[in-house]
Amino acid sequence: MSETETRTVSAGIVVIGDEILSGRTRDINVQQIAEFLAPLGIGLKEVRIVSDEQDAIIEAVKALSDRCDYVFTTGGIGPTHDDITADAVAAAFGRSIDVRDDALAILKDWYAKAKTEITPARLRMARIPDGAVLIDNPVTGAPGFQLENVFVMAGVPKIARGMLEDVAPRLTRGAVTHSVTVRLENAREGDLAEALGQMQTDYPSVSLGSYPWFQEAEDGSITRGVALVARGTDQDVLAEVERALQALAQ
Amino acid sequence: MSETETRTVSAGIVVIGDEILSGRTRDINVQQIAEFLAPLGIGLKEVRIVSDEQDAIIEAVKALSDRCDYVFTTGGIGPTHDDITADAVAAAFGRSIDVRDDALAILKDWYAKAKTEITPARLRMARIPDGAVLIDNPVTGAPGFQLENVFVMAGVPKIARGMLEDVAPRLTRGAVTHSVTVRLENAREGDLAEALGQMQTDYPSVSLGSYPWFQEAEDGSITRGVALVARGTDQDVLAEVERALQALAQ
Repeated sequence: MSETETRTVSAGIVVIGDEILSGRTRDINVQQIAEFLAPLGIGLKEVRIVSDEQDAIIEAVKALSDRCDYVFTTGGIGPTHDDITADAVAAAFGRSIDVRDDALAILKDWYAKAKTEITPARLRMARIPDGAVLIDNPVTGAPGFQLENVFVMAGVPKIARGMLEDVAPRLTRGAVTHSVTVRLENAREGDLAEALGQMQTDYPSVSLGSYPWFQEAEDGSITRGVALVARGTDQDVLAEVERALQALAQ
Repeated sequence: MSETETRTVSAGIVVIGDEILSGRTRDINVQQIAEFLAPLGIGLKEVRIVSDEQDAIIEAVKALSDRCDYVFTTGGIGPTHDDITADAVAAAFGRSIDVRDDALAILKDWYAKAKTEITPARLRMARIPDGAVLIDNPVTGAPGFQLENVFVMAGVPKIARGMLEDVAPRLTRGAVTHSVTVRLENAREGDLAEALGQMQTDYPSVSLGSYPWFQEAEDGSITRGVALVARGTDQDVLAEVERALQALAQ
């Protein structure tokens, strides 16, 4: 294992999301980003969902930029009045922001092919903070950008996904966290807790979680159980823990 | 309209969630809570998803307790070693915490009916901070609790839902935010942005959002459009805005 692979690399997400906060839309970017980063050995440390307000965005971006290796923001980089993320991120780092030639060239090229006029509103999407590196948008052209350790991406999940592909080679990889899940039918947390706690003490390099579930069948009967999840970077240790978890079923 | 109904009431959510951060589980409590609070006139202001670590929970709970009228936490109140939310919330407010008689009585009663033994692990679920008010758990017995403006609930969505029902009468209601959505097929944000921005200026009491969408048909063709969402507390104004948004389709 090389030196970089034993390093823990952390990420935070800031979802700029009146739509999510209102309950109208269920966020799927958090899970999408978590699943994208996991095989790169980058683990999510914290997520914040904030409203479309400059101060809220600035505070969240600053806080997570300080405590995480990388921050990903989603949402608020379109052409409309409520798209204020680019300006907020520029302000968070004290950078100036204006229409930038490289971003404008991408938009001109994209809209020429699509035979679409570049309105003053669309020009907003070429506003990029000073010193930022662009992120390709394979779906609708308008780029995202990276400023310091913050990656500013679109909120539309398909576009965010495309931007992640462009960003991946820029990321330092860490030790990949693997996980094993043991589902115990009819088990109850209270009966397992002591053995689990002991196991957590015995295997400090592994993170053990227990998640009760309840399922209602069509006839109204309820089945229950517990999903036991072990996470860690050493697959041999995980295999040992998995066997020990399975033994709890007896 | 009475005086309380014109007040804005805000809420924050802290999801205690290694399971969510790992990408293994998609959170559904945020949307569930948002939808539950909306008709009570309580709007979500911020959500934080943090790991199962004492310091992370304390910081998030304190921050949102300061800036929101109410805070709801989900997760981490079961019987296992990774359930540390109750202790963290007690610490956030400098309260002591121990097994409390009222919570213990509920557990004893519940487990007697279920013919289940109260293990030392299950006793953990009767640990309630000094001064907290219990929250009924109609699904599995073990109560949540309210400490100051923080409501500590289970992570299992069915249990969280039951706890919200118990909590609802304790909440001060605010002015209900209504919303209208106008979906424009084939529309593009860049063409609408100027008119939308003007409309936002004309109707400052309404919050206007625009959300592009892309849909892939079975034959591979892509349709696109924009969902325009207006939110506000005055339904007459909203109806006027809805007509204006629909007129943008022409």
